[in-house]
Amino acid sequence: MKQSQLFTKTKKESPADEVSLNAELLIRAGYINKEMAGVYSYLPLGLKVIKKIENIIREEMDKIGGIEMRTSVFQNKEVWEKSNRWDDEVVDNWFKTKLKNGTEVGLSFTNEEAYADILKQYINSYKDLPVYPYDFKNIFRNEARSKSGILRGREFYWKALYSFSKNDEEHNIFYEKSKEAYKNIFRRVGIGHLTYLTFASGGTFSKFSHEFQTVTSAGEDLIYVDPNKGIAINKEVYNDEVIESLGLKKEELVENKAVEVGNIFSLGTKFSAPFELKYKDENGEEKLVIMGSYGIGLGRLMGTVVEVLSDDKGIIWPESIAPFKVHLLSLGGDENVRNGAEDLYNKLKERGIEVLFDDRADTSAGEKFADSDLIGIPYRVVVSKRSLADGGFEVKKRTEVQGKIINEQELIGLLETKN
Amino acid sequence: MKQSQLFTKTKKESPADEVSLNAELLIRAGYINKEMAGVYSYLPLGLKVIKKIENIIREEMDKIGGIEMRTSVFQNKEVWEKSNRWDDEVVDNWFKTKLKNGTEVGLSFTNEEAYADILKQYINSYKDLPVYPYDFKNIFRNEARSKSGILRGREFYWKALYSFSKNDEEHNIFYEKSKEAYKNIFRRVGIGHLTYLTFASGGTFSKFSHEFQTVTSAGEDLIYVDPNKGIAINKEVYNDEVIESLGLKKEELVENKAVEVGNIFSLGTKFSAPFELKYKDENGEEKLVIMGSYGIGLGRLMGTVVEVLSDDKGIIWPESIAPFKVHLLSLGGDENVRNGAEDLYNKLKERGIEVLFDDRADTSAGEKFADSDLIGIPYRVVVSKRSLADGGFEVKKRTEVQGKIINEQELIGLLETKN
Repeated sequence: MKQSQLFTKTKKESPADEVSLNAELLIRAGYINKEMAGVYSYLPLGLKVIKKIENIIREEMDKIGGIEMRTSVFQNKEVWEKSNRWDDEVVDNWFKTKLKNGTEVGLSFTNEEAYADILKQYINSYKDLPVYPYDFKNIFRNEARSKSGILRGREFYWKALYSFSKNDEEHNIFYEKSKEAYKNIFRRVGIGHLTYLTFASGGTFSKFSHEFQTVTSAGEDLIYVDPNKGIAINKEVYNDEVIESLGLKKEELVENKAVEVGNIFSLGTKFSAPFELKYKDENGEEKLVIMGSYGIGLGRLMGTVVEVLSDDKGIIWPESIAPFKVHLLSLGGDENVRNGAEDLYNKLKERGIEVLFDDRADTSAGEKFADSDLIGIPYRVVVSKRSLADGGFEVKKRTEVQGKIINEQELIGLLETKN
Repeated sequence: MKQSQLFTKTKKESPADEVSLNAELLIRAGYINKEMAGVYSYLPLGLKVIKKIENIIREEMDKIGGIEMRTSVFQNKEVWEKSNRWDDEVVDNWFKTKLKNGTEVGLSFTNEEAYADILKQYINSYKDLPVYPYDFKNIFRNEARSKSGILRGREFYWKALYSFSKNDEEHNIFYEKSKEAYKNIFRRVGIGHLTYLTFASGGTFSKFSHEFQTVTSAGEDLIYVDPNKGIAINKEVYNDEVIESLGLKKEELVENKAVEVGNIFSLGTKFSAPFELKYKDENGEEKLVIMGSYGIGLGRLMGTVVEVLSDDKGIIWPESIAPFKVHLLSLGGDENVRNGAEDLYNKLKERGIEVLFDDRADTSAGEKFADSDLIGIPYRVVVSKRSLADGGFEVKKRTEVQGKIINEQELIGLLETKN
């Protein structure tokens, strides 16, 4: 895509009330627009990143047997009354609205009830299980405060998978698979090295739930990390008994602020009981389905990547979720330069290499470099009078200080290499 | 996909309060789930259809210069007050909700204000125009009645593009291109032959807007069609003067019920004026941007296809938006049949042919045929003792009465042919 066709521009400033680094950088670089505290629109660059994250998550969910669907945002009061989660006294972050006839309607803040209600229509026999439906949708939570940019939205884009299993054994097998899938996701989006499987509070049906916590000063959670074992304990369950039961040693644990980028939860029969979600086993006996939930906030994940991988010049996207692989900069008005850049742009596109081409005619080299650092595309390729005189193009990774001149063939070879 | 892995099942009945044909068939076949009147969830089969429709629309939007983004559902009161569309007395189908601090928030019922507000930050010069951003998102409208299934939802999935042009001339060029793009979309989803460019009421800035109306008895609109010229007039502007101005003759027009599957609208400066959305032209003079809007409801489009292409046995999907191309049915418990079907299933998958494999062991041939007709996949391929004895597989299009036996090579050749 040519930058002259992209309507967004970088900004020197983000909104005065924006205090989070992730939103500040993403707004200044033209990825998101702040509509109000905790509510952001995704501009073209931002949507590209979200879609790449979505595709990675979809691949990992499909690999462990997930089947995608899409539940509605509007939620039916009667459904949520079954599990006693309709009342604002019980769940204090509902957004609700009303139909013309006065009927109250809720906006999805999570999906357990919607899934249990739908699956009840289709599960009768042990032959119908297990099943692992999931969806990507906008979720709404009436947060009292919302100052962490896209780390904690009032409206946010979310993946939720629910597992429906015959028994604990079948549940546990999937639960372990989901841990691996989640690890793959966080590794693939570039924050695996900072993300820890974290033991957190469970519920009636399991001692722990598991969170995936990414260490960053922007985090709202406190975790205690064992760097050698690669696991952590959330402050909410951090005590001597838990430390010991996990085979950890207090003196080896390091306190860190962290963001919860994903969680998995054994629900047992918490929701299948009120919904009477049952199946007949091989002996014709009725049993309650065992459920689990597996969530990831896509905006939060994108914001976390920005928090942990940016530098003082801007964002540094991992190649897997960058809006483009290459940022091609044409410097100066020289005709050979313009033609050379245009020619290279077309060649890269033909080869299916995603490239953003800064073809703006009236922008200085300094501005183009600063914009490129702020936007954070993995490879920067410069075409200038000097680079052509030196025999080609200057290529530099966003993480490198110094570029090098290589010819077209070498450049294409480099950019076609899969990481 | 194997049908045994798909959790949905066909149903004999749809909900008692469901009076529309589209929702009845889609619910019975397992495409959608009714959450409440006007609110549906998309089950795995339904989401596959929605995504195919979405991809067709995206391709056509990108072809005419569209650039995708995603605006938030939550809308800021202050933004909508600028155009005087916040007040419930002015817009009577808002859904609104409240933040903890009492601040009112609206749920998107359309997107003009959100786009004008965002683009205002980025448009300064004639060099920034034209630009054609669009998004796919859930839209919410507080309809007093909602009895048309997915033809008129209270929550629905929608594509909206907005054009931002320097002047009427530039606007009109894009407006004509958008007509062609819309015709391509309706042709590609299989209802082009029943869909008419329809003249409807305009506004302050244009005599007419243009709707794309698909003729069906399920429609809520009345249009007057000239079958030879392929255009129509909406009842709201149907009078002698309009008929004459379009060069039509009253006696050649046929009255039809129809569904509005798309609309395009010249907005002039209606929204750019209150938002002071201006640019500096080549002479440094400030001018208001000229806007247009271009909408399509994806659920409505899906429902319309069901309304106009189904028969008394079920749905008939056009290949372009069918959830799968082939419905493979294995009949009876014979081992050769089971192996033959499994083998064919794997070969089709290897070739990238989308196939739903009815591998259910304890389901009768009659039930499998009835389910297949209801679900409406374009090609049905049967593997049975008889078909194998006759030298292969029985293939039948959903629209054909009689199948024919062909061998594997012929079958793969047939299914690999692009339509």
